[in-house]
Amino acid sequence: MSGDSIENVNPSWLKGFCSAVLQEMEIQPKDADLIAESLVQANLWGVDSHGVTRMPIYVERLRKKLVNPKPKITILQETPAMGVVDGDNGSGQVVASRSMELAIAKARESGVGVVGIRNSNHFGAAAFFTMMALRKEMIGVAMSNAPATMAPWGGKSPYLGTNPISVAVPAGQELPIVLDMATSVVARGKIILAARKGECIPAGCAIDLDGEVTTDAARALDGCVLPFGGPKGSAISLLIDVLAGVLTGAAFGPHIGDLYRNMECPQCVGHMMGAIDISWFSDVDAFKKRIDQMIRELKSVPPAKGVREVLLPGEIESRIQQRREAEGIPLTPDVLSDLYRLGLEYEVPWCDTHPTPNDDRG
Amino acid sequence: MSGDSIENVNPSWLKGFCSAVLQEMEIQPKDADLIAESLVQANLWGVDSHGVTRMPIYVERLRKKLVNPKPKITILQETPAMGVVDGDNGSGQVVASRSMELAIAKARESGVGVVGIRNSNHFGAAAFFTMMALRKEMIGVAMSNAPATMAPWGGKSPYLGTNPISVAVPAGQELPIVLDMATSVVARGKIILAARKGECIPAGCAIDLDGEVTTDAARALDGCVLPFGGPKGSAISLLIDVLAGVLTGAAFGPHIGDLYRNMECPQCVGHMMGAIDISWFSDVDAFKKRIDQMIRELKSVPPAKGVREVLLPGEIESRIQQRREAEGIPLTPDVLSDLYRLGLEYEVPWCDTHPTPNDDRG
Repeated sequence: MSGDSIENVNPSWLKGFCSAVLQEMEIQPKDADLIAESLVQANLWGVDSHGVTRMPIYVERLRKKLVNPKPKITILQETPAMGVVDGDNGSGQVVASRSMELAIAKARESGVGVVGIRNSNHFGAAAFFTMMALRKEMIGVAMSNAPATMAPWGGKSPYLGTNPISVAVPAGQELPIVLDMATSVVARGKIILAARKGECIPAGCAIDLDGEVTTDAARALDGCVLPFGGPKGSAISLLIDVLAGVLTGAAFGPHIGDLYRNMECPQCVGHMMGAIDISWFSDVDAFKKRIDQMIRELKSVPPAKGVREVLLPGEIESRIQQRREAEGIPLTPDVLSDLYRLGLEYEVPWCDTHPTPNDDRG
Repeated sequence: MSGDSIENVNPSWLKGFCSAVLQEMEIQPKDADLIAESLVQANLWGVDSHGVTRMPIYVERLRKKLVNPKPKITILQETPAMGVVDGDNGSGQVVASRSMELAIAKARESGVGVVGIRNSNHFGAAAFFTMMALRKEMIGVAMSNAPATMAPWGGKSPYLGTNPISVAVPAGQELPIVLDMATSVVARGKIILAARKGECIPAGCAIDLDGEVTTDAARALDGCVLPFGGPKGSAISLLIDVLAGVLTGAAFGPHIGDLYRNMECPQCVGHMMGAIDISWFSDVDAFKKRIDQMIRELKSVPPAKGVREVLLPGEIESRIQQRREAEGIPLTPDVLSDLYRLGLEYEVPWCDTHPTPNDDRG
């Protein structure tokens, strides 16, 4: 387990290991599997900022009783088309996936389903939930608010979170369209990862404590990130907080507990899950043919100078997933050693012979 | 009517004049009033690109029977929470406002209402429809696709429209939050206006026919505009086309007729209208207090260097409206003479004494 090279790790093994650690935190096996799957799935997509790098903080918050391992998730209010869910301070992945199931059931009945969620926590990659809708021939929408780390457009101190939004659209023969984006120029998770690696970040992503643009990842973490697309991205981020935070009765803006820095109280994150049942709007096959046509036409737009091809949302992630499913998930030494330490601490056996392609541990 | 200075025009007079011209196109008085109100309202907000500058093209398309003056708007499919509407090639404003009324009625019943619209036309400023929801204590959402004038991220020729989205959120004592944005860096309407005025556009907004960035408004109109926020804005624009175009059965991408350049066939624009009835999610007063709190906290974020204050979406428009309601709407000479010519052509009396503050016509 020593060494400073990146190791490729088998995804199934990794999932089982993470689930086992989470079960030591009194999370029920089904829920632990779900959280582990969400993290490993993010790694498979190449979204390492939302992958197993989050295990130590999840474990720490569970251990400190800041996250409820056995939440009683309740529906506070509902119609055949909407619901408001209280997550009882459960893990974000558990609360959000139950809520997306509810949104899907409502969309099946009413054409659309919208579920607002309060009292939740960090939920990982948003596309994990919108892709649940894909499997039901539905369009999925997921959004979440997040701790204040981003200045609103025109401001110099944090108020908004990097409030992510995901939309997934089923296709026929082509890959589905899957957008999953933070509303900051870059996800804060990517800055955390850059800081851990000692790497620089591009200019225009973040400002330091004094409100000056910085490329130093550590200084950016003390300061705040900037919204994508200037005032427009800032407004979209704000509206996600209105829908996921204000409307649902969750915390909003700077009142959301920081995942890493506030170890005194629950986060009180809010989400919004939506599903649109295509069959209520259109013949599903006709819809998929139209989406396929759109995708093919977009792929045939001549690329701009210096660009090899026009990429659709989700296309890169899908290619990385193919490669990582075959070759394993490359984990950096610090992430590996964090996991190894968790295994030691909670007596989850670290399988020295887990089947990774280039496993050089003896 | 000669002269080259900007004139301030009384909004009520302008509305009446535009409505009268539209009624000469066989549009019913109620519908003509609605279209005129939408255009003049955009001017009141300072969004002149979506104001009465559109009158000549609206009239030309109506005259050429490319827009149906008396559409039979029908509901093709519905549940208590959604609907699909066929606009029968009516004016976008007429079709979209009927559809938003339907979305509002469904939200009243089901908590949320989503209405997809096909066979429509250019609908002016999207906020005109979302603000209908505001007056019912609801959150309004409106989106539309638009003729292909924008390159997808990574491409160099147009595929997407500047597909606008508006979201309006009621507040208590503060101004409502009203976002209305094109998904291009700048609205194409603003480039049209710059080209008419012979003004330059900022770099990064548009590319010319060869795919090179240009600041020449006329060259930009031959080329295409760029999405806001790079790949993220491009993806949002694409998803608006999926929801407003592909899902509704409208045209999408480059298959939408250009408002100005395609005088052979209808536009076949698609829209999506959504309403969320706050009372199904939360106590309405509690929601408004939370929104007021959020707005006040955002306004108290210290401004970045060179910025006077943090502005909320819709704040600038509201201030301009106050001023223009008092002082009149400043119209450029070419817009004024276009209107004057329409008045002559369709025998709508041009009131030489319409009450404008600095009317210098004798």
